[in-house]
Amino acid sequence: MREIFSEELEDLHVRFSEMGMLVNEAVYNSVKAFVNHDRELALEVIQNDEAINQREVDIEKRSFEMIALQQPVTSDLRMIVTIMKASSDLERMGDHAVSIAKSTIRVKGNTRVPEIEEDIAAMADIVKQMVEDVLDAYVKKDEQRARKIALQDQQVNEAFKTIYDKCIDEMKNDPQTVIGSTDYLMVGTYLERVGDYVTNICEWIVYLKTNKLTELNTNNQEMM
Amino acid sequence: MREIFSEELEDLHVRFSEMGMLVNEAVYNSVKAFVNHDRELALEVIQNDEAINQREVDIEKRSFEMIALQQPVTSDLRMIVTIMKASSDLERMGDHAVSIAKSTIRVKGNTRVPEIEEDIAAMADIVKQMVEDVLDAYVKKDEQRARKIALQDQQVNEAFKTIYDKCIDEMKNDPQTVIGSTDYLMVGTYLERVGDYVTNICEWIVYLKTNKLTELNTNNQEMM
Repeated sequence: MREIFSEELEDLHVRFSEMGMLVNEAVYNSVKAFVNHDRELALEVIQNDEAINQREVDIEKRSFEMIALQQPVTSDLRMIVTIMKASSDLERMGDHAVSIAKSTIRVKGNTRVPEIEEDIAAMADIVKQMVEDVLDAYVKKDEQRARKIALQDQQVNEAFKTIYDKCIDEMKNDPQTVIGSTDYLMVGTYLERVGDYVTNICEWIVYLKTNKLTELNTNNQEMM
Repeated sequence: MREIFSEELEDLHVRFSEMGMLVNEAVYNSVKAFVNHDRELALEVIQNDEAINQREVDIEKRSFEMIALQQPVTSDLRMIVTIMKASSDLERMGDHAVSIAKSTIRVKGNTRVPEIEEDIAAMADIVKQMVEDVLDAYVKKDEQRARKIALQDQQVNEAFKTIYDKCIDEMKNDPQTVIGSTDYLMVGTYLERVGDYVTNICEWIVYLKTNKLTELNTNNQEMM
């Protein structure tokens, strides 16, 4: 019985990591599509989201059954609850990738500002690295690394502040860029939210190690 | 033992509802502050968010202990898991109220557009009603009502679309309104997200009744 449980728990970890990789790919591709004005890739991101949602439902179901049928010991239960909650965070990160993809489809044809698009690409690079790092830290249950990753959210917020300021300037100086710049702002907020979700997952990793729910996000320093 | 468990479960419901009422108040006050340019009220919303976060931590802890120590039967377990997950949704709704409050503090002094502010107030009224209704449906475990509430999210999305179009027009026609209109857009997206979280909670209510995770949000029709 105990051995089967261990296998099921291991399987749950694998499924969570796989879901994380799908989400990472979605976020990465959505920004790539946005910056390269690639409508096909944007559509692909939107279509793939259903698979991510299905993964969450599957993880949810398996987690619930493991708790209901096998009454795990406290440490295992903590692991399962963490996966349940963190998979919601992953699913929402996928939703934001869809929002970015929708912006790509909407923005096509409007006047664009290459400099801001470069800033968005750079912001996305930081976020992508954070997503990859948090999945790795999760697999290794590395609390210290999780704390470090959460600190990077500050960089994401600063990157957004820069994009915000540039968009406001553009829109003031050239009404032609209003629709495009509004989309840059939206994409910026979506990426910023993805950073917040990474921070949430960092908090879950810390929880696994310390048994304490700790707020790692320095919310007060955030602009939005 | 069973009686104590029932009392604890009832207590958990009460705590969840109380948290919901705090969040509803936060969302309502944040929009009220935004529309009335009321900096004091906005600061109050930001300060009160800590209490909402604490509620979530408390619910989390109690839920976990109930599962770990009392190994509830499946139907009770489903209830506890639902509260755990839905309390995350409530907490994030509170975060969006804080974002709206921050917009209020930022926007002060900029050129404003009363017509759009009225639209935001009207959009907030729909959202507020949804939040109240979902808490009530939750208490009554009313699946049919939950499905109806989720449908209203469509109205929220339409309200946002109207605000979006008006903001774009304003910014194109009058560069003085760029900063203000950007904030209107941001507040619109926050309210739209709150509507999404209400839909999530509706899905949890359906889950309680049907044992199935159902996607109630017609995501494809959404603009953002």
